[in-house]
Amino acid sequence: MSIKKDLFQGLSAFPITPADPDGTVDTSALVGILEKLDIPGIDSIGLLGSTGNYLYLTREQRKRAIHAAVQALQGRKPLIVSAGALRTDDAQRLAKDAEEAGVDGLLLAPVSYTPLTDEEVYTHYESVAGSTTLPICIYHTPSTTHFTFSDALLARIAALPNVVALKQPSPTAEPKARHEELRAKLPSGFSIGYSADWLVAEPLLAGGDVWYSAIAGVLPGPSVALMNSIRKGDHAEVKRISAVLQPIWELFQEFGDGRVVFALANELGLCKAAPPRPILPVAAEHHGRIRSAPPFPTTGGTAPPPSPSSRCLRSFSPACRYVAYPQLGHAMHHDLLFRAANYRPPPPPPRHHAHPNAYPTTTSSSANPVDWVVCYERVVSCAAALVTRLPRRRHEARNHFALALAASHGLPAHDLL
Amino acid sequence: MSIKKDLFQGLSAFPITPADPDGTVDTSALVGILEKLDIPGIDSIGLLGSTGNYLYLTREQRKRAIHAAVQALQGRKPLIVSAGALRTDDAQRLAKDAEEAGVDGLLLAPVSYTPLTDEEVYTHYESVAGSTTLPICIYHTPSTTHFTFSDALLARIAALPNVVALKQPSPTAEPKARHEELRAKLPSGFSIGYSADWLVAEPLLAGGDVWYSAIAGVLPGPSVALMNSIRKGDHAEVKRISAVLQPIWELFQEFGDGRVVFALANELGLCKAAPPRPILPVAAEHHGRIRSAPPFPTTGGTAPPPSPSSRCLRSFSPACRYVAYPQLGHAMHHDLLFRAANYRPPPPPPRHHAHPNAYPTTTSSSANPVDWVVCYERVVSCAAALVTRLPRRRHEARNHFALALAASHGLPAHDLL
Repeated sequence: MSIKKDLFQGLSAFPITPADPDGTVDTSALVGILEKLDIPGIDSIGLLGSTGNYLYLTREQRKRAIHAAVQALQGRKPLIVSAGALRTDDAQRLAKDAEEAGVDGLLLAPVSYTPLTDEEVYTHYESVAGSTTLPICIYHTPSTTHFTFSDALLARIAALPNVVALKQPSPTAEPKARHEELRAKLPSGFSIGYSADWLVAEPLLAGGDVWYSAIAGVLPGPSVALMNSIRKGDHAEVKRISAVLQPIWELFQEFGDGRVVFALANELGLCKAAPPRPILPVAAEHHGRIRSAPPFPTTGGTAPPPSPSSRCLRSFSPACRYVAYPQLGHAMHHDLLFRAANYRPPPPPPRHHAHPNAYPTTTSSSANPVDWVVCYERVVSCAAALVTRLPRRRHEARNHFALALAASHGLPAHDLL
Repeated sequence: MSIKKDLFQGLSAFPITPADPDGTVDTSALVGILEKLDIPGIDSIGLLGSTGNYLYLTREQRKRAIHAAVQALQGRKPLIVSAGALRTDDAQRLAKDAEEAGVDGLLLAPVSYTPLTDEEVYTHYESVAGSTTLPICIYHTPSTTHFTFSDALLARIAALPNVVALKQPSPTAEPKARHEELRAKLPSGFSIGYSADWLVAEPLLAGGDVWYSAIAGVLPGPSVALMNSIRKGDHAEVKRISAVLQPIWELFQEFGDGRVVFALANELGLCKAAPPRPILPVAAEHHGRIRSAPPFPTTGGTAPPPSPSSRCLRSFSPACRYVAYPQLGHAMHHDLLFRAANYRPPPPPPRHHAHPNAYPTTTSSSANPVDWVVCYERVVSCAAALVTRLPRRRHEARNHFALALAASHGLPAHDLL
């Protein structure tokens, strides 16, 4: 089962699921959010996770969200979906829905009201795993399900044929020792991944396979930067980027990551949606902190003129501001940034899915930090998109551009080729 | 709002909701269970509580259960129903369904997946209370909702116009002091009731208004006996009955009260149903303990012949065994027990709702303790039913019989008249 290693590894971005107050998913906003995640360095999309408020949505709405995501991603990113439900038969139905819709893998949390026994949780996993051919990730999330797995129970469930991965909160104490202890108890090749963004670096540096990330669902660029430094084992860089992200981690801990990413998504113009009641949005009085938290300072100035070699680019705005990311330490090519931010797409080819939101046509000249985050996000997603926009037959130009882009972003070049 | 004091007081019995594996409620079994609760000393029925697995049932099935209960009870017992749901709008819909079906009051628990803030819980109660005219009881159940109310939040919610009561687990430490502390913080006349059957006696003796009881939903007779001794403030009797019930409390704590009452209901022949998956029934190997737990020993012997004054009774079984309840200390009239257990009902009057399950036509002669519990339950419900079966025009005979019955059971006579 080669999907085991391919699917549950690297950086998995967990977007919110924008929905109206009645719980009807805004599939158009969702597609916009997903398109921003279609960048190198994001290895999978974790749709309808806890960040995606899966348990607050009906089966019908969860189906709608999945179908919209499958359509939008067109297989460009593997799609992982939570099939969690209070009842076992409902979880089986959700697993079947996901499989039929073309999802690549499932998350399954032991959702509870009546506190569950180990035997009940085992039987639940056995029943749901037996009802699908999809690979399943044990979704260990005690703060929401109120069930804590013992290592023995994890090992027992991990022995089920299509249970191949574990997602759990990053340990708060001795992350390296804890990771190694768990690794020794689980089958060889079993994927062990971590959530709780603010704690994730240590267990990943200790060998964790996946970062299941809430922040990556709304700020994919900085998340990719952090994950790349983790992949390289560059402890100093990890520390530096983590410090930059600290204001966001503080907001996560104060308000809960779900509420904060919702607020960020609204502030970034990705959607106009509130979390499902009874969950309340972060109060307006705190939005100033959220707006100023994203750690991407800007410096003024006029961008240099574009280099004439970039034949794929059409237009440039002379008003575009010079953007630097000194705190992230990116050796960013300014003209590349400039051109990407101002790129206007050609009409989409007939067989290609259109991504209108991924190619912004305006440039921010405001000093509002959030605008610069939008700009940064645009740059990353647009620059990645530029590669795919170059016709495959012009492979030389495409390769050249992708390599330059990879170098400028510190991304693995093969992701762009 | 006179219902405040009438509705949330005394002994509230919380039955299970028997359902098939797909979650379709067995309304016939449910009605049978409810009819056994239609005895003096049970002050209200708490349908679809945690014991009734409300959160595991769809809105449609919850409606079906409510309609069946309203039909069966015909207003003879006030009906309290949980309107709890993960989403606020769903809770509002459930409250409306209950109100339209003729329910008397609501329980509302802050069901959670994403951990909730105080403000979110307050807004949830405000929204649901604002959508119904029914009186609402705050259902504080941290072991299932994972939300713990502060006293300040309780007081804030208690100030909402139709929030009139609190149901919470019995305090494990200093129950009297804790009850009085809470009483001082809540509005005058606000009902404070307790759950967790094995701990309930102390806070009730300290002035608690309601016993929200899981055991009363399946063994109403012994529960009424315990509650009556609490009402009388008879500490010695409370202690004695509590000791008798101890084996059940131990099972509750070992397996969870919900699983045990399900097993008891099956053992007592009240239903053939399992809890909703993933919750598993108590394993067969433990059923022996459950069968032998009900603390009603029997002594052999042949019952004395019935007294000729009971003209309402039709038939007697000479094989009926002599039953004594020395541990409960009931001064039970053996011939009354005997006659009640053997009573065969006349055809129901045309305008009267038929209760076929409430009038058993067979007598147990087995030494199985569970059969004796069935017998005891039959006796209590049948004896109460006997009174209502006597035509109203024969008021002298009716009064005489009711007074004898009340005396033999230690029940308040006015409940039977």
